[in-house]
Amino acid sequence: MDPIRIIEIKKSVFADNNEDAEALRRELKARGVYLLNLMSSPGSGKTTTLIRTLNLLKDRLRIAVMEADIDSDVDAVKIKEATGVSSIQLHTGGMCHLDAEMTRQGLSGVDVPDLDLVVLENVGNLVCPAEFDTGAVRNAMILSVPEGDDKPLKYPLMFSVCDTVVINKIDVLPYFDFNLEKCREYILRRNPRARIFPLCAKTGEGVEAFADWLYGEVISWKNTQNR
Amino acid sequence: MDPIRIIEIKKSVFADNNEDAEALRRELKARGVYLLNLMSSPGSGKTTTLIRTLNLLKDRLRIAVMEADIDSDVDAVKIKEATGVSSIQLHTGGMCHLDAEMTRQGLSGVDVPDLDLVVLENVGNLVCPAEFDTGAVRNAMILSVPEGDDKPLKYPLMFSVCDTVVINKIDVLPYFDFNLEKCREYILRRNPRARIFPLCAKTGEGVEAFADWLYGEVISWKNTQNR
Repeated sequence: MDPIRIIEIKKSVFADNNEDAEALRRELKARGVYLLNLMSSPGSGKTTTLIRTLNLLKDRLRIAVMEADIDSDVDAVKIKEATGVSSIQLHTGGMCHLDAEMTRQGLSGVDVPDLDLVVLENVGNLVCPAEFDTGAVRNAMILSVPEGDDKPLKYPLMFSVCDTVVINKIDVLPYFDFNLEKCREYILRRNPRARIFPLCAKTGEGVEAFADWLYGEVISWKNTQNR
Repeated sequence: MDPIRIIEIKKSVFADNNEDAEALRRELKARGVYLLNLMSSPGSGKTTTLIRTLNLLKDRLRIAVMEADIDSDVDAVKIKEATGVSSIQLHTGGMCHLDAEMTRQGLSGVDVPDLDLVVLENVGNLVCPAEFDTGAVRNAMILSVPEGDDKPLKYPLMFSVCDTVVINKIDVLPYFDFNLEKCREYILRRNPRARIFPLCAKTGEGVEAFADWLYGEVISWKNTQNR
Protein backbone atom coordinates (compact mmCIF):
# COMPACT_ATOMS: atom_id res chain seq x y z
CA MET A 1 0.00 0.00 0.00
CA ASP A 2 1.21 3.52 -0.77
CA PRO A 3 1.98 5.52 2.33
CA ILE A 4 -0.87 7.72 3.51
CA ARG A 5 -0.61 11.33 2.43
CA ILE A 6 -0.45 13.60 5.45
CA ILE A 7 -1.37 17.28 5.17
CA GLU A 8 -0.15 19.58 7.94
CA ILE A 9 -2.98 22.07 8.36
CA LYS A 10 -2.04 25.70 9.02
CA LYS A 11 -4.08 28.22 10.97
CA SER A 12 -6.53 30.19 8.86
CA VAL A 13 -5.89 33.76 7.91
CA PHE A 14 -9.47 34.54 6.91
CA ALA A 15 -11.28 36.89 9.22
CA ASP A 16 -14.77 35.78 8.32
CA ASN A 17 -15.08 32.00 8.39
CA ASN A 18 -18.80 32.02 7.56
CA GLU A 19 -18.19 33.94 4.36
CA ASP A 20 -15.30 31.68 3.48
CA ALA A 21 -17.43 28.59 4.13
CA GLU A 22 -20.15 29.89 1.80
CA ALA A 23 -17.54 30.47 -0.89
CA LEU A 24 -16.19 26.95 -0.48
CA ARG A 25 -19.71 25.50 -0.73
CA ARG A 26 -20.25 27.40 -3.99
CA GLU A 27 -16.94 26.09 -5.36
CA LEU A 28 -17.89 22.54 -4.44
CA LYS A 29 -21.31 22.96 -6.03
CA ALA A 30 -19.75 24.16 -9.25
CA ARG A 31 -17.54 21.06 -9.25
CA GLY A 32 -20.45 18.76 -8.30
CA VAL A 33 -18.66 17.60 -5.16
CA TYR A 34 -20.66 16.80 -2.02
CA LEU A 35 -18.79 17.40 1.25
CA LEU A 36 -20.04 15.71 4.42
CA ASN A 37 -18.67 16.93 7.75
CA LEU A 38 -18.79 14.05 10.22
CA MET A 39 -18.38 14.88 13.89
CA SER A 40 -18.53 13.00 17.18
CA SER A 41 -16.86 12.38 20.54
CA PRO A 42 -13.66 10.38 20.60
CA GLY A 43 -14.46 6.69 20.41
CA SER A 44 -18.05 6.89 19.15
CA GLY A 45 -17.18 4.83 16.07
CA LYS A 46 -16.77 7.40 13.28
CA THR A 47 -14.14 5.35 11.46
CA THR A 48 -15.97 2.02 11.71
CA THR A 49 -19.24 3.61 10.57
CA LEU A 50 -17.42 5.21 7.69
CA ILE A 51 -15.80 1.93 6.61
CA ARG A 52 -19.19 0.18 6.48
CA THR A 53 -20.77 3.07 4.61
CA LEU A 54 -17.95 3.42 2.10
CA ASN A 55 -18.09 -0.27 1.29
CA LEU A 56 -21.77 0.17 0.37
CA LEU A 57 -21.14 3.27 -1.77
CA LYS A 58 -17.70 2.91 -3.32
CA ASP A 59 -18.91 1.17 -6.48
CA ARG A 60 -21.57 3.82 -7.10
CA LEU A 61 -19.68 7.02 -6.27
CA ARG A 62 -16.13 8.37 -6.58
CA ILE A 63 -15.21 9.04 -2.98
CA ALA A 64 -12.35 10.47 -0.92
CA VAL A 65 -11.94 10.67 2.84
CA MET A 66 -10.12 13.32 4.85
CA GLU A 67 -9.25 12.17 8.38
CA ALA A 68 -8.58 15.05 10.73
CA ASP A 69 -6.53 14.18 13.76
CA ILE A 70 -4.25 16.01 16.12
CA ASP A 71 -1.56 13.47 15.44
CA SER A 72 -1.17 9.90 14.07
CA ASP A 73 -2.42 8.45 10.79
CA VAL A 74 -4.19 5.49 12.41
CA ASP A 75 -7.58 6.29 10.89
CA ALA A 76 -6.55 7.07 7.32
CA VAL A 77 -4.55 3.83 7.15
CA LYS A 78 -7.54 1.88 8.54
CA ILE A 79 -9.95 3.40 6.00
CA LYS A 80 -7.68 2.75 3.04
CA GLU A 81 -6.95 -0.82 4.08
CA ALA A 82 -10.58 -1.70 4.79
CA THR A 83 -12.22 -0.01 1.80
CA GLY A 84 -9.59 0.90 -0.81
CA VAL A 85 -11.09 4.40 -0.84
CA SER A 86 -8.58 7.23 -1.23
CA SER A 87 -7.83 8.67 2.22
CA ILE A 88 -5.63 11.47 3.38
CA GLN A 89 -4.77 12.46 6.91
CA LEU A 90 -5.05 16.08 8.06
CA HIS A 91 -2.83 16.95 10.99
CA THR A 92 -4.33 19.83 12.92
CA GLY A 93 -1.25 20.40 15.07
CA GLY A 94 -3.18 20.51 18.33
CA MET A 95 -6.09 22.53 16.92
CA CYS A 96 -9.41 21.23 18.11
CA HIS A 97 -11.53 21.92 15.05
CA LEU A 98 -11.43 22.61 11.32
CA ASP A 99 -12.77 25.71 9.64
CA ALA A 100 -13.43 26.36 5.96
CA GLU A 101 -9.91 27.43 5.05
CA MET A 102 -8.41 24.41 6.83
CA THR A 103 -10.88 22.19 4.98
CA ARG A 104 -9.84 23.82 1.71
CA GLN A 105 -6.18 23.03 2.51
CA GLY A 106 -7.22 19.41 2.99
CA LEU A 107 -9.25 19.31 -0.24
CA SER A 108 -6.21 20.54 -2.18
CA GLY A 109 -4.49 17.30 -1.22
CA VAL A 110 -7.30 15.07 -2.53
CA ASP A 111 -6.26 13.44 -5.76
CA VAL A 112 -9.39 11.71 -7.15
CA PRO A 113 -10.65 12.66 -10.64
CA ASP A 114 -14.38 13.41 -11.09
CA LEU A 115 -14.97 13.28 -7.38
CA ASP A 116 -18.58 12.88 -6.16
CA LEU A 117 -18.28 12.70 -2.39
CA VAL A 118 -15.73 13.78 0.20
CA VAL A 119 -16.21 12.80 3.81
CA LEU A 120 -14.40 14.92 6.35
CA GLU A 121 -13.91 13.06 9.62
CA ASN A 122 -13.55 16.01 11.96
CA VAL A 123 -11.56 16.05 15.23
CA GLY A 124 -13.22 13.94 17.95
CA ASN A 125 -14.84 16.65 20.03
CA LEU A 126 -18.45 17.75 20.67
CA VAL A 127 -17.63 21.37 21.41
CA CYS A 128 -15.29 23.26 19.08
CA PRO A 129 -16.05 21.63 15.70
CA ALA A 130 -19.71 22.68 16.13
CA GLU A 131 -18.66 26.33 16.15
CA PHE A 132 -16.99 26.42 12.74
CA ASP A 133 -18.69 26.04 9.37
CA THR A 134 -16.32 23.90 7.28
CA GLY A 135 -18.10 24.62 4.00
CA ALA A 136 -19.71 21.17 4.06
CA VAL A 137 -23.09 20.59 2.40
CA ARG A 138 -24.24 18.81 5.57
CA ASN A 139 -23.10 18.29 9.11
CA ALA A 140 -23.66 14.83 10.54
CA MET A 141 -22.71 13.53 13.95
CA ILE A 142 -22.43 10.15 15.58
CA LEU A 143 -23.60 9.60 19.14
CA SER A 144 -22.86 6.17 20.56
CA VAL A 145 -25.06 4.40 23.08
CA PRO A 146 -22.39 4.19 25.84
CA GLU A 147 -22.10 8.00 25.86
CA GLY A 148 -25.64 8.36 27.20
CA ASP A 149 -28.96 9.65 25.92
CA ASP A 150 -28.53 13.04 27.60
CA LYS A 151 -25.83 14.34 25.24
CA PRO A 152 -28.20 16.57 23.19
CA LEU A 153 -28.98 18.38 26.46
CA LYS A 154 -25.32 18.90 27.30
CA TYR A 155 -23.93 19.76 23.84
CA PRO A 156 -26.78 21.85 22.41
CA LEU A 157 -24.84 23.57 19.63
CA MET A 158 -23.49 20.32 18.18
CA PHE A 159 -27.00 18.87 17.92
CA SER A 160 -28.38 22.13 16.52
CA VAL A 161 -25.91 22.33 13.63
CA CYS A 162 -26.30 18.67 12.65
CA ASP A 163 -29.08 17.67 10.27
CA THR A 164 -28.24 14.02 10.63
CA VAL A 165 -27.55 12.05 13.77
CA VAL A 166 -26.31 8.47 13.71
CA ILE A 167 -26.92 6.58 16.95
CA ASN A 168 -24.18 3.96 16.92
CA LYS A 169 -23.52 0.81 18.98
CA ILE A 170 -27.19 -0.14 19.33
CA ASP A 171 -25.99 -3.74 19.89
CA VAL A 172 -25.03 -2.79 23.46
CA LEU A 173 -28.38 -1.13 24.30
CA PRO A 174 -29.18 -3.96 26.78
CA TYR A 175 -26.08 -3.13 28.84
CA PHE A 176 -26.56 0.63 29.16
CA ASP A 177 -29.27 2.90 30.56
CA PHE A 178 -29.95 4.49 27.19
CA ASN A 179 -33.50 5.39 26.24
CA LEU A 180 -33.68 5.57 22.45
CA GLU A 181 -37.04 7.35 22.42
CA LYS A 182 -35.94 9.92 24.96
CA CYS A 183 -32.75 10.49 22.97
CA ARG A 184 -34.75 11.01 19.77
CA GLU A 185 -36.89 13.56 21.59
CA TYR A 186 -33.82 15.45 22.91
CA ILE A 187 -32.26 15.49 19.42
CA LEU A 188 -35.43 16.83 17.79
CA ARG A 189 -35.68 19.46 20.48
CA ARG A 190 -32.34 20.83 19.22
CA ASN A 191 -33.10 20.36 15.53
CA PRO A 192 -36.68 19.46 14.57
CA ARG A 193 -35.56 18.49 11.05
CA ALA A 194 -32.85 16.09 12.15
CA ARG A 195 -32.77 12.67 10.53
CA ILE A 196 -31.85 9.96 12.98
CA PHE A 197 -30.22 6.65 12.01
CA PRO A 198 -29.86 4.07 14.79
CA LEU A 199 -27.28 1.50 13.69
CA CYS A 200 -24.48 -0.82 14.68
CA ALA A 201 -21.31 -0.22 12.68
CA LYS A 202 -19.71 -3.34 14.17
CA THR A 203 -22.36 -5.75 12.81
CA GLY A 204 -23.58 -3.56 9.95
CA GLU A 205 -27.18 -3.42 11.21
CA GLY A 206 -28.90 -0.27 9.98
CA VAL A 207 -25.94 1.03 7.98
CA GLU A 208 -27.71 0.58 4.66
CA ALA A 209 -30.36 3.16 5.52
CA PHE A 210 -27.65 5.69 6.32
CA ALA A 211 -25.69 4.87 3.14
CA ASP A 212 -28.86 5.15 1.03
CA TRP A 213 -29.63 8.53 2.55
CA LEU A 214 -26.09 9.73 1.79
CA TYR A 215 -26.29 8.42 -1.77
CA GLY A 216 -29.53 10.31 -2.35
CA GLU A 217 -27.99 13.46 -0.93
CA VAL A 218 -25.02 13.29 -3.28
CA ILE A 219 -27.19 12.66 -6.33
CA SER A 220 -29.57 15.50 -5.58
CA TRP A 221 -26.64 17.88 -4.91
CA LYS A 222 -25.16 16.97 -8.28
CA ASN A 223 -28.56 17.35 -10.00
CA THR A 224 -28.77 20.96 -8.87
CA GLN A 225 -25.14 21.61 -9.76
CA ASN A 226 -25.88 24.13 -12.45
CA ARG A 227 -28.80 25.85 -10.80
CA MET B 1 -33.07 21.20 47.87
CA ASP B 2 -31.60 24.67 47.39
CA PRO B 3 -31.24 25.63 43.76
CA ILE B 4 -27.79 24.95 42.27
CA ARG B 5 -25.53 27.97 42.19
CA ILE B 6 -24.53 28.76 38.63
CA ILE B 7 -21.41 30.79 37.88
CA GLU B 8 -21.16 32.35 34.42
CA ILE B 9 -17.48 32.13 33.58
CA LYS B 10 -15.89 35.07 31.77
CA LYS B 11 -12.96 34.89 29.39
CA SER B 12 -9.59 35.34 31.06
CA VAL B 13 -7.65 38.55 30.81
CA PHE B 14 -4.33 37.07 31.93
CA ALA B 15 -1.71 36.81 29.23
CA ASP B 16 0.30 34.04 30.82
CA ASN B 17 -1.91 31.18 31.93
CA ASN B 18 0.99 29.04 33.16
CA GLU B 19 2.13 31.77 35.53
CA ASP B 20 -1.42 32.33 36.70
CA ALA B 21 -1.89 28.58 37.28
CA GLU B 22 1.28 28.45 39.42
CA ALA B 23 -0.01 31.38 41.45
CA LEU B 24 -3.37 29.66 41.98
CA ARG B 25 -1.62 26.46 43.09
CA ARG B 26 0.39 28.44 45.68
CA GLU B 27 -2.81 30.10 46.96
CA LEU B 28 -4.49 26.71 47.27
CA LYS B 29 -1.47 25.27 49.06
CA ALA B 30 -1.49 28.13 51.56
CA ARG B 31 -5.18 27.38 52.24
CA GLY B 32 -4.58 23.61 52.39
CA VAL B 33 -7.03 22.99 49.56
CA TYR B 34 -6.39 20.17 47.08
CA LEU B 35 -7.79 20.79 43.59
CA LEU B 36 -8.30 17.83 41.26
CA ASN B 37 -8.92 18.55 37.58
CA LEU B 38 -10.98 15.71 36.14
CA MET B 39 -11.17 15.43 32.36
CA SER B 40 -12.66 13.00 29.83
CA SER B 41 -14.69 12.64 26.65
CA PRO B 42 -18.41 13.29 26.83
CA GLY B 43 -20.19 10.28 28.26
CA SER B 44 -17.22 8.48 29.80
CA GLY B 45 -18.84 8.53 33.23
CA LYS B 46 -17.17 11.44 35.04
CA THR B 47 -20.27 12.28 37.06
CA THR B 48 -21.08 8.69 38.05
CA THR B 49 -17.45 8.01 39.03
CA LEU B 50 -17.46 11.19 41.05
CA ILE B 51 -20.68 10.29 42.88
CA ARG B 52 -19.25 6.92 43.94
CA THR B 53 -15.97 8.49 45.01
CA LEU B 54 -17.59 11.33 46.95
CA ASN B 55 -19.78 8.91 48.85
CA LEU B 56 -16.62 7.12 50.02
CA LEU B 57 -14.84 10.33 51.04
CA LYS B 58 -17.48 12.80 52.19
CA ASP B 59 -17.34 11.78 55.87
CA ARG B 60 -13.55 12.09 55.96
CA LEU B 61 -13.00 15.28 53.97
CA ARG B 62 -14.74 18.62 53.41
CA ILE B 63 -15.43 18.58 49.70
CA ALA B 64 -16.87 20.79 46.98
CA VAL B 65 -17.49 20.04 43.33
CA MET B 66 -17.38 22.46 40.39
CA GLU B 67 -19.17 21.15 37.31
CA ALA B 68 -18.07 22.86 34.13
CA ASP B 69 -20.54 22.69 31.31
CA ILE B 70 -21.36 24.73 28.27
CA ASP B 71 -24.94 24.89 29.37
CA SER B 72 -27.41 23.08 31.70
CA ASP B 73 -27.02 22.24 35.39
CA VAL B 74 -27.77 18.52 34.97
CA ASP B 75 -24.52 17.34 36.55
CA ALA B 76 -24.39 19.66 39.55
CA VAL B 77 -27.97 18.73 40.47
CA LYS B 78 -27.15 15.02 40.12
CA ILE B 79 -24.05 15.29 42.33
CA LYS B 80 -25.83 17.22 45.05
CA GLU B 81 -28.82 14.88 45.08
CA ALA B 82 -26.74 11.71 45.11
CA THR B 83 -24.08 12.73 47.61
CA GLY B 84 -25.16 15.85 49.49
CA VAL B 85 -21.78 17.36 48.61
CA SER B 86 -21.79 21.07 47.81
CA SER B 87 -21.80 21.51 44.02
CA ILE B 88 -21.77 24.53 41.80
CA GLN B 89 -22.19 24.70 38.07
CA LEU B 90 -19.78 26.69 35.93
CA HIS B 91 -21.21 27.84 32.63
CA THR B 92 -18.44 28.30 30.12
CA GLY B 93 -20.64 30.03 27.55
CA GLY B 94 -19.46 27.85 24.69
CA MET B 95 -15.81 27.81 25.70
CA CYS B 96 -14.30 24.38 25.37
CA HIS B 97 -11.90 24.43 28.29
CA LEU B 98 -11.11 26.10 31.61
CA ASP B 99 -7.90 27.91 32.39
CA ALA B 100 -6.54 29.07 35.75
CA GLU B 101 -8.40 32.37 35.87
CA MET B 102 -11.68 30.69 34.93
CA THR B 103 -11.05 28.11 37.65
CA ARG B 104 -10.41 30.93 40.12
CA GLN B 105 -13.76 32.49 39.17
CA GLY B 106 -15.38 29.16 39.94
CA LEU B 107 -13.57 28.77 43.27
CA SER B 108 -14.81 32.19 44.36
CA GLY B 109 -18.31 30.75 44.24
CA VAL B 110 -17.53 27.77 46.49
CA ASP B 111 -18.97 28.29 49.92
CA VAL B 112 -17.60 25.49 52.14
CA PRO B 113 -15.64 26.41 55.29
CA ASP B 114 -12.27 24.65 55.93
CA LEU B 115 -12.35 23.04 52.54
CA ASP B 116 -10.03 20.04 51.94
CA LEU B 117 -10.80 18.96 48.38
CA VAL B 118 -12.32 20.58 45.32
CA VAL B 119 -13.00 18.46 42.27
CA LEU B 120 -13.28 20.34 39.00
CA GLU B 121 -15.23 18.36 36.44
CA ASN B 122 -13.84 19.94 33.27
CA VAL B 123 -15.69 20.26 29.93
CA GLY B 124 -16.12 16.86 28.21
CA ASN B 125 -13.38 17.07 25.60
CA LEU B 126 -10.03 15.31 25.09
CA VAL B 127 -8.39 18.15 23.18
CA CYS B 128 -8.65 21.68 24.53
CA PRO B 129 -8.76 21.09 28.31
CA ALA B 130 -5.38 19.33 28.03
CA GLU B 131 -3.80 22.52 26.76
CA PHE B 132 -4.61 24.71 29.76
CA ASP B 133 -3.19 24.39 33.26
CA THR B 134 -6.12 25.06 35.61
CA GLY B 135 -3.95 25.44 38.70
CA ALA B 136 -4.97 21.98 39.90
CA VAL B 137 -2.63 19.89 42.04
CA ARG B 138 -3.26 16.94 39.74
CA ASN B 139 -4.87 16.20 36.42
CA ALA B 140 -6.85 13.00 36.18
CA MET B 141 -8.80 11.66 33.24
CA ILE B 142 -11.39 8.98 32.68
CA LEU B 143 -11.28 6.75 29.64
CA SER B 144 -14.24 4.41 29.26
CA VAL B 145 -14.02 0.98 27.65
CA PRO B 146 -16.47 1.73 24.78
CA GLU B 147 -14.21 4.57 23.58
CA GLY B 148 -11.48 2.10 22.63
CA ASP B 149 -8.00 1.24 23.85
CA ASP B 150 -6.30 3.38 21.18
CA LYS B 151 -7.23 6.76 22.69
CA PRO B 152 -3.76 7.38 24.21
CA LEU B 153 -2.37 7.14 20.67
CA LYS B 154 -4.88 9.63 19.30
CA TYR B 155 -4.96 12.18 22.12
CA PRO B 156 -1.30 12.23 23.18
CA LEU B 157 -1.32 15.54 25.05
CA MET B 158 -4.28 14.58 27.26
CA PHE B 159 -2.56 11.39 28.36
CA SER B 160 0.77 13.19 28.87
CA VAL B 161 -0.65 15.81 31.23
CA CYS B 162 -2.62 13.31 33.32
CA ASP B 163 -0.91 11.55 36.23
CA THR B 164 -3.95 9.44 36.89
CA VAL B 165 -6.12 7.55 34.43
CA VAL B 166 -9.36 5.87 35.43
CA ILE B 167 -10.50 3.17 33.01
CA ASN B 168 -14.26 3.11 33.52
CA LYS B 169 -17.05 0.73 32.44
CA ILE B 170 -14.93 -2.42 32.85
CA ASP B 171 -18.23 -4.30 33.27
CA VAL B 172 -18.74 -4.12 29.49
CA LEU B 173 -15.25 -5.40 28.59
CA PRO B 174 -16.78 -8.64 27.21
CA TYR B 175 -18.80 -6.67 24.64
CA PHE B 176 -16.03 -4.47 23.22
CA ASP B 177 -12.68 -5.08 21.55
CA PHE B 178 -10.75 -3.39 24.33
CA ASN B 179 -7.40 -4.79 25.39
CA LEU B 180 -6.72 -3.59 28.94
CA GLU B 181 -3.02 -4.52 28.87
CA LYS B 182 -2.46 -2.80 25.54
CA CYS B 183 -4.26 0.27 26.84
CA ARG B 184 -2.07 0.32 29.95
CA GLU B 185 1.00 0.14 27.72
CA TYR B 186 -0.23 3.03 25.53
CA ILE B 187 -0.98 5.16 28.61
CA LEU B 188 2.46 4.53 30.14
CA ARG B 189 4.07 5.38 26.83
CA ARG B 190 2.57 8.88 27.18
CA ASN B 191 3.26 9.20 30.92
CA PRO B 192 5.47 6.55 32.53
CA ARG B 193 4.41 7.68 36.01
CA ALA B 194 0.67 7.44 35.37
CA ARG B 195 -1.41 5.60 37.93
CA ILE B 196 -4.15 3.55 36.33
CA PHE B 197 -7.41 2.59 38.04
CA PRO B 198 -9.68 0.18 36.16
CA LEU B 199 -13.14 0.40 37.69
CA CYS B 200 -16.86 0.30 37.12
CA ALA B 201 -18.63 3.36 38.44
CA LYS B 202 -22.03 1.78 37.81
CA THR B 203 -21.46 -1.20 40.14
CA GLY B 204 -18.78 0.40 42.32
CA GLU B 205 -16.13 -2.22 41.53
CA GLY B 206 -12.64 -0.76 41.92
CA VAL B 207 -13.81 2.69 43.06
CA GLU B 208 -12.38 2.24 46.56
CA ALA B 209 -8.81 2.05 45.26
CA PHE B 210 -9.31 5.34 43.41
CA ALA B 211 -10.95 7.00 46.43
CA ASP B 212 -8.15 5.79 48.72
CA TRP B 213 -5.53 7.18 46.37
CA LEU B 214 -7.33 10.55 46.28
CA TYR B 215 -7.65 10.59 50.07
CA GLY B 216 -3.90 9.97 50.43
CA GLU B 217 -3.18 12.74 47.93
CA VAL B 218 -5.26 15.29 49.86
CA ILE B 219 -3.69 14.37 53.20
CA SER B 220 -0.13 14.58 51.91
CA TRP B 221 -0.85 17.93 50.20
CA LYS B 222 -2.18 19.30 53.50
CA ASN B 223 0.82 17.90 55.39
CA THR B 224 3.20 19.91 53.27
CA GLN B 225 0.97 23.00 53.47
CA ASN B 226 3.48 25.13 55.33
CA ARG B 227 6.62 23.93 53.62
